[in-house]
Amino acid sequence: MFDVVTLGESMLRLAAPPGEALESAPHFDVRTAGAEVNVAATLARLGFRTAWITKLVDDPLGRRLAADARRHGVDTSAIVWTTTGRSGVYFLEQGPLPRGVTVYYDRAGSAFSTLEAGEVTWDVVRGARWAHVTGITPALSAACAATAARFIHEARAAGAKVSIDVNYRRKLWTAERARAGLEPLLASADLVIVARDDAREVFGLDGAPRDVARRAREQFKAGAAVVTAGADGACLADASGVYHETAVPAGEIDPIGRGDAFAAGMLWGALDGDLRAGLRYGVALAAMAQTYLGDVAWVSRQDVLAVLAGRGPKPVR
Amino acid sequence: MFDVVTLGESMLRLAAPPGEALESAPHFDVRTAGAEVNVAATLARLGFRTAWITKLVDDPLGRRLAADARRHGVDTSAIVWTTTGRSGVYFLEQGPLPRGVTVYYDRAGSAFSTLEAGEVTWDVVRGARWAHVTGITPALSAACAATAARFIHEARAAGAKVSIDVNYRRKLWTAERARAGLEPLLASADLVIVARDDAREVFGLDGAPRDVARRAREQFKAGAAVVTAGADGACLADASGVYHETAVPAGEIDPIGRGDAFAAGMLWGALDGDLRAGLRYGVALAAMAQTYLGDVAWVSRQDVLAVLAGRGPKPVR
Amino acid sequence: MFDVVTLGESMLRLAAPPGEALESAPHFDVRTAGAEVNVAATLARLGFRTAWITKLVDDPLGRRLAADARRHGVDTSAIVWTTTGRSGVYFLEQGPLPRGVTVYYDRAGSAFSTLEAGEVTWDVVRGARWAHVTGITPALSAACAATAARFIHEARAAGAKVSIDVNYRRKLWTAERARAGLEPLLASADLVIVARDDAREVFGLDGAPRDVARRAREQFKAGAAVVTAGADGACLADASGVYHETAVPAGEIDPIGRGDAFAAGMLWGALDGDLRAGLRYGVALAAMAQTYLGDVAWVSRQDVLAVLAGRGPKPVR
Amino acid sequence: MFDVVTLGESMLRLAAPPGEALESAPHFDVRTAGAEVNVAATLARLGFRTAWITKLVDDPLGRRLAADARRHGVDTSAIVWTTTGRSGVYFLEQGPLPRGVTVYYDRAGSAFSTLEAGEVTWDVVRGARWAHVTGITPALSAACAATAARFIHEARAAGAKVSIDVNYRRKLWTAERARAGLEPLLASADLVIVARDDAREVFGLDGAPRDVARRAREQFKAGAAVVTAGADGACLADASGVYHETAVPAGEIDPIGRGDAFAAGMLWGALDGDLRAGLRYGVALAAMAQTYLGDVAWVSRQDVLAVLAGRGPKPVR
Amino acid sequence: MFDVVTLGESMLRLAAPPGEALESAPHFDVRTAGAEVNVAATLARLGFRTAWITKLVDDPLGRRLAADARRHGVDTSAIVWTTTGRSGVYFLEQGPLPRGVTVYYDRAGSAFSTLEAGEVTWDVVRGARWAHVTGITPALSAACAATAARFIHEARAAGAKVSIDVNYRRKLWTAERARAGLEPLLASADLVIVARDDAREVFGLDGAPRDVARRAREQFKAGAAVVTAGADGACLADASGVYHETAVPAGEIDPIGRGDAFAAGMLWGALDGDLRAGLRYGVALAAMAQTYLGDVAWVSRQDVLAVLAGRGPKPVR
Amino acid sequence: MFDVVTLGESMLRLAAPPGEALESAPHFDVRTAGAEVNVAATLARLGFRTAWITKLVDDPLGRRLAADARRHGVDTSAIVWTTTGRSGVYFLEQGPLPRGVTVYYDRAGSAFSTLEAGEVTWDVVRGARWAHVTGITPALSAACAATAARFIHEARAAGAKVSIDVNYRRKLWTAERARAGLEPLLASADLVIVARDDAREVFGLDGAPRDVARRAREQFKAGAAVVTAGADGACLADASGVYHETAVPAGEIDPIGRGDAFAAGMLWGALDGDLRAGLRYGVALAAMAQTYLGDVAWVSRQDVLAVLAGRGPKPVR
Repeated sequence: MFDVVTLGESMLRLAAPPGEALESAPHFDVRTAGAEVNVAATLARLGFRTAWITKLVDDPLGRRLAADARRHGVDTSAIVWTTTGRSGVYFLEQGPLPRGVTVYYDRAGSAFSTLEAGEVTWDVVRGARWAHVTGITPALSAACAATAARFIHEARAAGAKVSIDVNYRRKLWTAERARAGLEPLLASADLVIVARDDAREVFGLDGAPRDVARRAREQFKAGAAVVTAGADGACLADASGVYHETAVPAGEIDPIGRGDAFAAGMLWGALDGDLRAGLRYGVALAAMAQTYLGDVAWVSRQDVLAVLAGRGPKPVR
Repeated sequence: MFDVVTLGESMLRLAAPPGEALESAPHFDVRTAGAEVNVAATLARLGFRTAWITKLVDDPLGRRLAADARRHGVDTSAIVWTTTGRSGVYFLEQGPLPRGVTVYYDRAGSAFSTLEAGEVTWDVVRGARWAHVTGITPALSAACAATAARFIHEARAAGAKVSIDVNYRRKLWTAERARAGLEPLLASADLVIVARDDAREVFGLDGAPRDVARRAREQFKAGAAVVTAGADGACLADASGVYHETAVPAGEIDPIGRGDAFAAGMLWGALDGDLRAGLRYGVALAAMAQTYLGDVAWVSRQDVLAVLAGRGPKPVR
Repeated sequence: MFDVVTLGESMLRLAAPPGEALESAPHFDVRTAGAEVNVAATLARLGFRTAWITKLVDDPLGRRLAADARRHGVDTSAIVWTTTGRSGVYFLEQGPLPRGVTVYYDRAGSAFSTLEAGEVTWDVVRGARWAHVTGITPALSAACAATAARFIHEARAAGAKVSIDVNYRRKLWTAERARAGLEPLLASADLVIVARDDAREVFGLDGAPRDVARRAREQFKAGAAVVTAGADGACLADASGVYHETAVPAGEIDPIGRGDAFAAGMLWGALDGDLRAGLRYGVALAAMAQTYLGDVAWVSRQDVLAVLAGRGPKPVR
Repeated sequence: MFDVVTLGESMLRLAAPPGEALESAPHFDVRTAGAEVNVAATLARLGFRTAWITKLVDDPLGRRLAADARRHGVDTSAIVWTTTGRSGVYFLEQGPLPRGVTVYYDRAGSAFSTLEAGEVTWDVVRGARWAHVTGITPALSAACAATAARFIHEARAAGAKVSIDVNYRRKLWTAERARAGLEPLLASADLVIVARDDAREVFGLDGAPRDVARRAREQFKAGAAVVTAGADGACLADASGVYHETAVPAGEIDPIGRGDAFAAGMLWGALDGDLRAGLRYGVALAAMAQTYLGDVAWVSRQDVLAVLAGRGPKPVR
Repeated sequence: MFDVVTLGESMLRLAAPPGEALESAPHFDVRTAGAEVNVAATLARLGFRTAWITKLVDDPLGRRLAADARRHGVDTSAIVWTTTGRSGVYFLEQGPLPRGVTVYYDRAGSAFSTLEAGEVTWDVVRGARWAHVTGITPALSAACAATAARFIHEARAAGAKVSIDVNYRRKLWTAERARAGLEPLLASADLVIVARDDAREVFGLDGAPRDVARRAREQFKAGAAVVTAGADGACLADASGVYHETAVPAGEIDPIGRGDAFAAGMLWGALDGDLRAGLRYGVALAAMAQTYLGDVAWVSRQDVLAVLAGRGPKPVR
Repeated sequence: MFDVVTLGESMLRLAAPPGEALESAPHFDVRTAGAEVNVAATLARLGFRTAWITKLVDDPLGRRLAADARRHGVDTSAIVWTTTGRSGVYFLEQGPLPRGVTVYYDRAGSAFSTLEAGEVTWDVVRGARWAHVTGITPALSAACAATAARFIHEARAAGAKVSIDVNYRRKLWTAERARAGLEPLLASADLVIVARDDAREVFGLDGAPRDVARRAREQFKAGAAVVTAGADGACLADASGVYHETAVPAGEIDPIGRGDAFAAGMLWGALDGDLRAGLRYGVALAAMAQTYLGDVAWVSRQDVLAVLAGRGPKPVR
């Protein structure tokens, strides 16, 4: 029934407005954000049927997290609702260099971090074509790690393909713990996505992106591996070879969510049976995502194709 | 599959912020609004499964109209998408008396006004328990009038119950045309809702609300008729008698959407098989709706019950 | 050529937003304000040809003061421009009682306070039907007092009628100085407007509004005198008798500018040769003015007539 | 060295703007708030030397909490800084009735809740004239309860007087636990402040405010007891008798902080050796506080005296 | 009496704030915009006497369109007012590349599109030195095309000079229709302005800007022709030769209105009898215009001269 | 008791928001600003004990100026309060080049400009390690010049070191008057900071920054002299030699306050007894300051050290 199902936490993103500081801003812009829901939302915008599994508090903040996923078209019927716990929050301040982006997580004790595999109705996964999760989920708690493992198990058992975005978060666990936690999940994944820096820091995979992609694919026995390298574009290694795609030049309004947009592009290609097209969709979506405030680019499939065709929007008056 | 399905137009609501004027406000607050989608949204918030039939332009504004319905939980899979036409707009300015509320419609030529019955996949209605529409829809165009008639026909044919909120709009048609257009739809409806002033102006039904309710029920051979009378509360006439409910005292932030909130309350009662409870839900929801900017009250079922129990929110610090 | 010409200062009005404090608000709302320009602006909105004489600094702030008059339709070709001096400013904070309205003037040394009669091209007055000034202008400086006297002189000499709104400002001069400064201007004015409290404090005219109006007319040998009494309405004394008009009930968003709106209404009546109609226009405009943030009500002639006809705007959806 | 020292938590107050909902507001207004810091801030504004003891995280949010106290003039040198834990947060939505005020606390695990008596440099209390704390502090954790007890002990030992505002919070502890936790602190306090509803709910003291005040004083063997009764004003019982003060009529922008403003007024009187004057200051400050967005009224001593003298701000133009 | 008179439509420009999307922005920034009114406004700011002919609805939105022209000093007495039809609107979203600028017109059925030549009081043109129109006007409707032709005819007949800015809009008509519609207007114009891309797309004039300018002048038998080439500056061909001016380096806040600012600069030169100076004014104004949100640069003549003198504003603290 | 005491004026900074114009912005962002208070604020943020001497009006605006210094941790007990005079204001508009930064001062007659040496309680200076003032203070009035001289005299007499930032303001005095006014203050200062352009314009010191620094040190017989050269970094000349530090690459949000941030960095080094470290702190702080709206960078000591270590904030999600 669904093209892609994802599992992950969504948080309130409370950001000092552009140019302001968390210490003094009179208001914080409120958006919602989470790697896996970003992927589901972007794919829904592109016309795919997506669902998202999470656990939320049944209060205005939790309802907001669900509503913001639905806005983009994500199915939220598989959400586990609770009346205890809290909604994860992160505070964000960003400015030009040397200021950059600073994130203050306040997510300990979130409802999601208590999600047990037994709480989920796994039917939603069983009918899906792909299941997607990132390395953030198993980092959040032992319960989340077990639920992520079950998620992958259920997907495979039902014949769905599995993709994993490594998404290493230094504030959540050490590189050693991340490696130990992620390797079992990555083993035999159909698609692994990893940032160049994470590949080195977590898995000791150093070198040119194309080499890292090839070695990552081998090491994880994955169907395909993609290494993202920011301004240097991205490399895909699959059974047929290694491919590179250059980054799409883009101004930067808000870099957060760029990686999730890339992952959505890869899955678009994967769903169409063309990972190399996915690489192109990914770099285009990553470029577009950083021109919007917030994690998700408010674009349509047609907008992405126009950027790839070099026929992006132009001034008309 | 759905508890309630509605059919109607949604518009961009562009409002001068509180205290400002349309002629000079530096920005307009953007919300979306339409009587039938408001009802579907409120019922979805209360936990019912609702769907909404409309026709939208596939551009950012049209997608916004759909997204804002989904946010509340309304199913939007039955929407008819088009690449021509425009999104209806209305401009709004409001202030305390003697300024009041002024609405400038700019909805001619909207995508919805071109909706033909043949464009709709009527399956969504066939599985529903109730079908709800207001007197605005047939007022918009001949196509809309025919589609509204078909909507009611499909509902009845499939065994669904039908409710109609008269919602007379002087800017859309004359009282004479409204009467001619609405009477066939109202005939034998399971539930008719009409404002005291509309009953008099359109149908010549004058007098105390309880009398008007009783006579409206008779005249339309309706299962039940409800007359709303603002600060005087509302009256229900059904097979068992006539009932009155006083208004819930409420401050006023934005009166728009109050009537739709009331209708949603009536349908809540109807779905629970208790129209008299619906009357209570209606006056509570109407009161709550006018304390929010925008058409829809961001409330839960529990919030409504708390107001009815006199246990509304209290300051805690 | 002009129906009404006014002479006076306009200032930047820097206001803490509703609910905020001057000491902490992150931004100040910027509007422009001045008793005489408010009157000219309101009359221009009603369809009259009005011009405004003032002196402004030729920089963005001064240009803003002129532009905001033009927006409403006031002719600004008679403005005296200078490259020295400053723009008058006032800081405003308001809240519900017991907080109320507090104004901090910072207008000393303004360009207007240096306006000499010899700088003005008086032709603009010579072709006018009415000349209007308030008691604020002569309070600002000796130069302004002389210019106000000349303004009245030029108007009379050319056959224009003269109206004066007493507008006593305790922060600008004492009651004694106000009396001495205003009596020569008021003498033989065609229309004098004075608030009940000002009549008592400046001129010792105490008692019921109707008595004060009659006695003011006699004392100043004015064609007509009007006493405003807030919620108690206003009284007009002219050659034909004394008339009272009740206030129009109104919610309050921002009381500033209410008196100027009333004066504009009186002049509307005067221009139509019907001061008693002016009294009605005045109370309606005063009521409407306090429902808008800022000094001037963004209304049309038709809006005022609708309020007087009790057919004010009503919700339509 | 200080007139008043207080001990308590401050939180980020994240509020949906007026008319908006937490579920949908695009931004949250950010202010800081806590009962004891509100009292210290208000007294600092009135010209008293005040200090505030708390525990904060040394990051932008924690620094903001300290900075917002300093803004009003509160000494923050006694704050205990930490690099672990989090800043307490509460989410706020308010609207007219029946919507009212709803607060969602997210304060578990805050830095303050871990404050041990041994972390505080108690010198700041030793030199103070008064020490003030509310019933919120002991409700937060066992550590906080012990620290509050030590605070009172240190104050007494050094000859300072002690005031306690009961401030019962149902969301933090039950009435039974509150009673058990508060009675030891209240015993022999120099001044006890309690809301009428809290007196009944926590201590079973029912009846007219004047009776409750007298009985509370006896029960707690307090120097004086004050019972606040909202629109019914407040009653003081001290050695000389029982006194009542009517509430000052006031519009309501934001009721939060009203009680803290009242407490500050009582302490003003206490510091001047005149509790009956304190009662008058209290009702005036409570009225003023609710006309400002945020917890603390941005007023001066002179503003309060003007309200009491009936010479509050008036429109001047 | 006027230096320049222009004829054209003005629309409400409803823009998602910087970084936001039309699909989700909580408010839209409201400005007014239209090529010909932009030119009149900029010239008025520079000290020239300008008037603007258009047709507007007499409601708050139509009045806003007129008021925003008056703000800059444009005479609006020649506007044709109507009580039917609607105000044209366009929705705007912009971001850094690859997002760029996207405009959604909603201007069909606007009041202006119904403007018949017979409705205009042509006296305003007869006394003017220059008449200016763009290629947008004839594209809007047959009525507008006829009115534009009459506008040019009236100007010529009265001895005024005529300038035309090609301003091709792909969303309004095809290149073929544009060519057929514009050639009669361009024939013998005193000044033709055309963007390099439009020259190629509409008239098949390809090549270096200087060649295109020369050939355009010949083809249209124009007094002078100017080709604008964005970052490559602009080229003027007149009887004395061909001249090139480099672009003024400028950051970009909002590119819309750049071309109209350039046209205003050319007309400034033309009014001073120095087209080559106009070329310099044009590139300076175009650069300045894109540093302001909105279509019109809020600059004075002195500001432009300072930029040209390289003495632009500098930080002073 | 204090590490650094500064003397100077603070003004309300009323700025058109980014992209907007002073002539049309609907609100002005309000911040407070003054060279010397900026230095004291930045040093307080870094953990130093700082105090600031100024003269303020005891009204909401004056209290705001004090409160905004306290927010950062500056001691305000040495402020001289008055009930007459006004608060200095400056209006600010900025945009990308060629628009740049434009400041309109409205500071004549400010309370500070009337500050007499005899009004200050000089004890605050006597206990300080460093006293800092800029060339703006003596430019404001004869009284200010005398007070600045006394400030330096008191500092020296008590053994404090003295630093002076030349900060030449063309709008306040001519280069000749500046030279005559500043040379006596600069003579024998422990640290002189001067911008390259000011060195040339005021003191005729032309050439490479390193040469200017050396010659400035000699000419003023200063302990050390620093010349700032924007993108070219800064040069320090002291007894041990001449040192250069390159600028830290930085995006620009708001350049105002950059120089004050640099001065604070120099003083940080000076207080640590390491002027060369101060040079590094200075360029880092200057870079960080221009990434914040407003004059003062909301940074901690740790943030600055991280930038210097190249370990600035990085995206984490």
